[in-house]
Amino acid sequence: MSLYSQYFYSDEVNELLSDTQSITQMLRVEGVLVKAQAGQGIMPIDLAEMIISCCHTDFIDIEKLRGDLVKGGNAAIPLVKQLTRIVENRNAEASKYVHIGATSQDIVDTATVLQIQEFIIWLDEKLDILSQLLIDLTRKHRQTLMAGRTLLQQARPITFGLKTALWLQSIERTKVRIKSVEERILVIQLSGAVGSGNAYLSKEVQQSVAEMLELNLAFSWQSARDNMAEWASVLGILVGSLGKIARDISLLMQTEIAEVLEGSGEGKGGSSTMPHKRNPVVCASILANATRLPHLVATILSAMPQEHERSAGLWHSEWEVLNEIMLLTGGAVERMIELIEGLEVDEKRMLVNLELTKGLIYAENVSLALAPQIGKTQAHELIEKACKQAIAQQKHLKEILAEMFVDLPNLEELFMPAYSIGNSLDIIDEILETVS
Amino acid sequence: MSLYSQYFYSDEVNELLSDTQSITQMLRVEGVLVKAQAGQGIMPIDLAEMIISCCHTDFIDIEKLRGDLVKGGNAAIPLVKQLTRIVENRNAEASKYVHIGATSQDIVDTATVLQIQEFIIWLDEKLDILSQLLIDLTRKHRQTLMAGRTLLQQARPITFGLKTALWLQSIERTKVRIKSVEERILVIQLSGAVGSGNAYLSKEVQQSVAEMLELNLAFSWQSARDNMAEWASVLGILVGSLGKIARDISLLMQTEIAEVLEGSGEGKGGSSTMPHKRNPVVCASILANATRLPHLVATILSAMPQEHERSAGLWHSEWEVLNEIMLLTGGAVERMIELIEGLEVDEKRMLVNLELTKGLIYAENVSLALAPQIGKTQAHELIEKACKQAIAQQKHLKEILAEMFVDLPNLEELFMPAYSIGNSLDIIDEILETVS
Amino acid sequence: MSLYSQYFYSDEVNELLSDTQSITQMLRVEGVLVKAQAGQGIMPIDLAEMIISCCHTDFIDIEKLRGDLVKGGNAAIPLVKQLTRIVENRNAEASKYVHIGATSQDIVDTATVLQIQEFIIWLDEKLDILSQLLIDLTRKHRQTLMAGRTLLQQARPITFGLKTALWLQSIERTKVRIKSVEERILVIQLSGAVGSGNAYLSKEVQQSVAEMLELNLAFSWQSARDNMAEWASVLGILVGSLGKIARDISLLMQTEIAEVLEGSGEGKGGSSTMPHKRNPVVCASILANATRLPHLVATILSAMPQEHERSAGLWHSEWEVLNEIMLLTGGAVERMIELIEGLEVDEKRMLVNLELTKGLIYAENVSLALAPQIGKTQAHELIEKACKQAIAQQKHLKEILAEMFVDLPNLEELFMPAYSIGNSLDIIDEILETVS
Amino acid sequence: MSLYSQYFYSDEVNELLSDTQSITQMLRVEGVLVKAQAGQGIMPIDLAEMIISCCHTDFIDIEKLRGDLVKGGNAAIPLVKQLTRIVENRNAEASKYVHIGATSQDIVDTATVLQIQEFIIWLDEKLDILSQLLIDLTRKHRQTLMAGRTLLQQARPITFGLKTALWLQSIERTKVRIKSVEERILVIQLSGAVGSGNAYLSKEVQQSVAEMLELNLAFSWQSARDNMAEWASVLGILVGSLGKIARDISLLMQTEIAEVLEGSGEGKGGSSTMPHKRNPVVCASILANATRLPHLVATILSAMPQEHERSAGLWHSEWEVLNEIMLLTGGAVERMIELIEGLEVDEKRMLVNLELTKGLIYAENVSLALAPQIGKTQAHELIEKACKQAIAQQKHLKEILAEMFVDLPNLEELFMPAYSIGNSLDIIDEILETVS
Repeated sequence: MSLYSQYFYSDEVNELLSDTQSITQMLRVEGVLVKAQAGQGIMPIDLAEMIISCCHTDFIDIEKLRGDLVKGGNAAIPLVKQLTRIVENRNAEASKYVHIGATSQDIVDTATVLQIQEFIIWLDEKLDILSQLLIDLTRKHRQTLMAGRTLLQQARPITFGLKTALWLQSIERTKVRIKSVEERILVIQLSGAVGSGNAYLSKEVQQSVAEMLELNLAFSWQSARDNMAEWASVLGILVGSLGKIARDISLLMQTEIAEVLEGSGEGKGGSSTMPHKRNPVVCASILANATRLPHLVATILSAMPQEHERSAGLWHSEWEVLNEIMLLTGGAVERMIELIEGLEVDEKRMLVNLELTKGLIYAENVSLALAPQIGKTQAHELIEKACKQAIAQQKHLKEILAEMFVDLPNLEELFMPAYSIGNSLDIIDEILETVS
Repeated sequence: MSLYSQYFYSDEVNELLSDTQSITQMLRVEGVLVKAQAGQGIMPIDLAEMIISCCHTDFIDIEKLRGDLVKGGNAAIPLVKQLTRIVENRNAEASKYVHIGATSQDIVDTATVLQIQEFIIWLDEKLDILSQLLIDLTRKHRQTLMAGRTLLQQARPITFGLKTALWLQSIERTKVRIKSVEERILVIQLSGAVGSGNAYLSKEVQQSVAEMLELNLAFSWQSARDNMAEWASVLGILVGSLGKIARDISLLMQTEIAEVLEGSGEGKGGSSTMPHKRNPVVCASILANATRLPHLVATILSAMPQEHERSAGLWHSEWEVLNEIMLLTGGAVERMIELIEGLEVDEKRMLVNLELTKGLIYAENVSLALAPQIGKTQAHELIEKACKQAIAQQKHLKEILAEMFVDLPNLEELFMPAYSIGNSLDIIDEILETVS
Repeated sequence: MSLYSQYFYSDEVNELLSDTQSITQMLRVEGVLVKAQAGQGIMPIDLAEMIISCCHTDFIDIEKLRGDLVKGGNAAIPLVKQLTRIVENRNAEASKYVHIGATSQDIVDTATVLQIQEFIIWLDEKLDILSQLLIDLTRKHRQTLMAGRTLLQQARPITFGLKTALWLQSIERTKVRIKSVEERILVIQLSGAVGSGNAYLSKEVQQSVAEMLELNLAFSWQSARDNMAEWASVLGILVGSLGKIARDISLLMQTEIAEVLEGSGEGKGGSSTMPHKRNPVVCASILANATRLPHLVATILSAMPQEHERSAGLWHSEWEVLNEIMLLTGGAVERMIELIEGLEVDEKRMLVNLELTKGLIYAENVSLALAPQIGKTQAHELIEKACKQAIAQQKHLKEILAEMFVDLPNLEELFMPAYSIGNSLDIIDEILETVS
Repeated sequence: MSLYSQYFYSDEVNELLSDTQSITQMLRVEGVLVKAQAGQGIMPIDLAEMIISCCHTDFIDIEKLRGDLVKGGNAAIPLVKQLTRIVENRNAEASKYVHIGATSQDIVDTATVLQIQEFIIWLDEKLDILSQLLIDLTRKHRQTLMAGRTLLQQARPITFGLKTALWLQSIERTKVRIKSVEERILVIQLSGAVGSGNAYLSKEVQQSVAEMLELNLAFSWQSARDNMAEWASVLGILVGSLGKIARDISLLMQTEIAEVLEGSGEGKGGSSTMPHKRNPVVCASILANATRLPHLVATILSAMPQEHERSAGLWHSEWEVLNEIMLLTGGAVERMIELIEGLEVDEKRMLVNLELTKGLIYAENVSLALAPQIGKTQAHELIEKACKQAIAQQKHLKEILAEMFVDLPNLEELFMPAYSIGNSLDIIDEILETVS
């Protein structure tokens, strides 16, 4: 693995999606296939078992496979060759049945699906952890007042809990998407040379294979890659949502805002030359992955118009890219869990920042309160004028309003952040209710 | 519209998603909002009706709006200004309630959703037509024998119906995806300045607005754009599937293959200099759109990590791109319907092409038939040798096998395409059953 | 043009690259072609002149062309048909020579090049203006102290002039790139049906056409699109550099930083609900374009592996996308000029912000000054400790250092921003020298 | 390296760009830096030499570096820490000068540039080999007649040499681009914490470092990444051109066309189930890379709008992607050399295919020959009619023309491919002249 194997990636996912695991899954498919075929009387059960006993990654010469792959053009061809030779050495008769009826894409694609299956188990668990962390954070900061910001400008107060509740919702929606795509993506590929099946790949064999692998049935999708593209998209969307969270946190960590901080593990986020900095190094890794993912998803989409019954190049372009999408997603999810887990929130600073505009952030309150009296447009214009004066004279808006003889019974209240958070608390409560 | 408005696009969709329609939908949202607010006692019903009576696109000075947009930075700001002025001219009191409590993103986003809603109605209908055309084509060519091709090489025979049935399945899966994303994408955006709602945007107001617009409720997604990204992805996947069909057809139209032809409307596909050509001009337009879509989808994904409660630039990058995605999808779908409708299939040529390899395409049949006798590997190698001889001597494989004294009882049968199509017919029948 | 024609785009470029202009350029190519052919004796000069007199956009029925384009699959086919008919009506003999020897791609591609040629003239001029504005800004703020920021954290002081000088350099490098690509992109396409030329497109005819259009000669690039891809890339890079500037400005405009402001034209950047905001609406439009451009450039790259002598779909995908790349570039450049022209710089606020860290920003100064005394690592660790205390006790770093008995002769100086800007001024001067 | 390390990649380039090499180059920069600083009297020369003697990759604990990287957020921080400790163990005094004045990005970026420098040497050599192969192929097939094809339809004859000469030109243009970008990309990054330089990074130090590394000088490009984007683009364009060649070859290899074949190394391109196939497995790998590259280039472009003096995430997204771009380019170039080297051309089949249209491919000849007699439009229409009859009656066009009493003196000649190749031979000769 690369220098960045623990920064952009997750060790656990690196393991799940490793080359070795990929070979293991391909061999698993070969084994299950002959077992299913034996079950249908296509071969004697003892020969199938002989084959299965040879389906071990340890028996495979990976270096040789790497070299031979260049000739065949995919991983299954040299693997099947090695497997056949291994079986042959034990039982020549059995070797006749290795991979029978199948095509290399059947093996490669189904093995990929099995890796996706394992990745989904990992991901589901991690997203549950992340959701729970966000739920806890939301509960804790349900009433923590802070500036809501639009176009990078302070706009009106919200609570930090509202922000995190909306983060949470985006993760929850991804969970729904994963559930939805699962039934389409967790399917066998087992259709033979041109997707038409054959006597060795009867309906019954397919059903049996699917059952043993806990996958759904499917007709050939050898050159109909919409499900893979959907899977890539779902992960791209998830990482986009994680990127949004990392974006917010990295902005809130700016020296001049400093409302939240990444947890400071030993030496974490320290700069080599500026000992005082608290760099958003975790955010940076998530944002890096969120910058890369859209383009990798697009690669899978670009690879869709595959020629005839198997493509010359487009299918090939999927292999590493699909893997990379899952690997970078795994890293981003793991980093995000660390980030939320260790997040330090400076509630006081949030309040201090709310005062930075000298009341301008409450201008809309006054504008809305005035509107029924003098009309929306007029109110807007009056307050715009007052704000300009406040800025020019560096005074608090309240002062200016007093000077302009703007008189409202609840003026003090209008300038209190808690008064200005709209339905934040109700929204938070409703969101929390739906997820628990 | 551009020079290519009828080539890459659909006139109907161009109309649905036009600027004028966009303004119409924004005004519709403004109207429904005050109606809902009046229903909750926020304003007198007659004032709301006065406002609604002003919500007509005809009243809007679009040229002025275009210019003013530059100052405000989105379309709703100058629109609300114009609307307020129009209402003011009729009833100053009413003008106080225009757009009250809402933010410009509420209007822009909900209007976009309403355009998506209309586009989905259009799309559903067109996809049903396309499915039906593919069903008919599949039925007609259930038994039409042709070469299955992998890596652009003839591999084994299939039927044309198998090919089209698998095309059909990819379209059917997109329909499922649209149904799934609908509940997430067809939602209101109505959360005010920072997504927290306010007294003018109470739960009741939101429910009422949602009901009138036939949309689902949703909390603020002003900077949580996962649903938009999912919508973009679903369309990208659809166009990828259409691109796959166009790829196949354009390849089958090659001079040297010539198994299908685009329908020849008057002058269609003619070259300006080569009177004999039948260019795949419809395929070319679909492939062009399929080349562009992945990158547009990726743009929406790249735009996901939006800052705080509203982004400075990323939200803005979505506007035209989301529209373009739907416009190009509309064009590709419409072109595909024309393409399938007019498709000419040359069944004879398909049979002729099956003979091009002088029996080599049936080599696997012989190999599989021999395997139980002499072992899979040996059979594979023997046939490989026979094939090489057949090529070298430009003889039919059957001849070579005879010379090599390969003796199989059903040798003639092994060289018949109909014998070699595996489970094609069963697969077709099952697919047709699931869609009808 | 779209609602956003003045926001994301430039009216001038919209005009240069309009459909009408595109037709005008195609007709110009047809006219120049027959003139060159007449010059070589291929046709009588008076017939050529008759054709030229018909090459006017006003004579073309654009609506009809739009419809007919669908049949031919590109714009030149129906255009040549209309032109031929127009000529025929005046002189049947002349009509025989219209477009003779040429293929439609010759016309479409060369017309595109001519539009690029005009766009480059526009762009060169605008980039000169932008450079001059950045030079002026750099001169003015050569010594304006501000925080340099890395990973969104204050790091060490720089001057604003250093920041703008580096912006300037990136624009200057793009100018070099444009000069470099010009010789490759500003070339004729004039190679006939399959790129082999013919008697009507002799070397002499090509030279004459190239001369009249002020383009370079080139052999067929009908399916070798590297120059177009390079052109797209150069613009993508330019817009990326503009995006970097807009990113910086939008971040510096944040409420909590507020060191620069977009110029406040009447009503510009105002929010519909928050009268006090100064939204970075110009930055937002540039950032939006910078978000879109990479994906459009990638589309052109994706379209490169074009089939044989002319592609079925990939060439087609370039047409609108290349145009869109130039249109969005035009808009971004124009917006950037406005932005820099109107930029308001708050030098005082910059100084205030430099004090926000209570001396922490100067920690490296102390660390470096201490290093020769106690070693780099030890100095680093000591200062790290001091910084932590300063933060914990909310004291100025100077105070803490005093408490820790850290004694350095020039301690006061170490905490002055002007002392800490490294070689900023020399760098600025050198950059300014190279550009003037 | 991955399973596909020899299929999509080049072993030589894998080695050049390995993590180990990356560390080696970073250490080289650290060494050169202190040497230059010592040369300027910043430190004693013997201490510098002590440091240099520690700059060996063997001394580095890469596993530890991988783990520590997560805390610092880039590779240089933990590397400098390890290096400092190593030096310290030998000479505490020397350790004070390690990395002095520099920032981690200086090291990471300059090391990357050094890897690019080595990659360019490799690439230049390989492209020269590729050019020479294409020159030889062009010379050999200068007169080899074949069908030119547009929109996947036979259009008019060309020679195979014309096709390969135009391939060659695209490679030659990339060489020019590499030369052009070299001066911008092969530069030092050595500007300290915020790009302003400092006393330890004086102009003289920078010049000395640049000289020792054979790089150009440059001011800070820590957040101005246009050169990196240009470099990525140049490679993207190269791979696009390679993709075009692979596209053509894969299409020409189709069973029904079979005009060229990939060289058949032992077992190469064989299918696991269809012994007769000659799969374009090399083309497939190049096309896969060409499918991926545009999206990776776009990633680098998307990463351009970097914040302030160093980005939080965008810079980080470049690291692996820039590497991957070079790795996949290396693979595609190496595969292309193998492909062209082993290419088998079936000249006879090319001639046979030229007869497939029964003369239709020569229709334009007749049309052009007739035009002066009866007018271009009329000729076009007449020949169109003749072609339709030829198709309907499955007769040769010559026969139909005879039946239609079309009389042209040189009719026989018009139907000879050699007559129809336009200026192919002259073009080839001119191209060959320019490259030798």
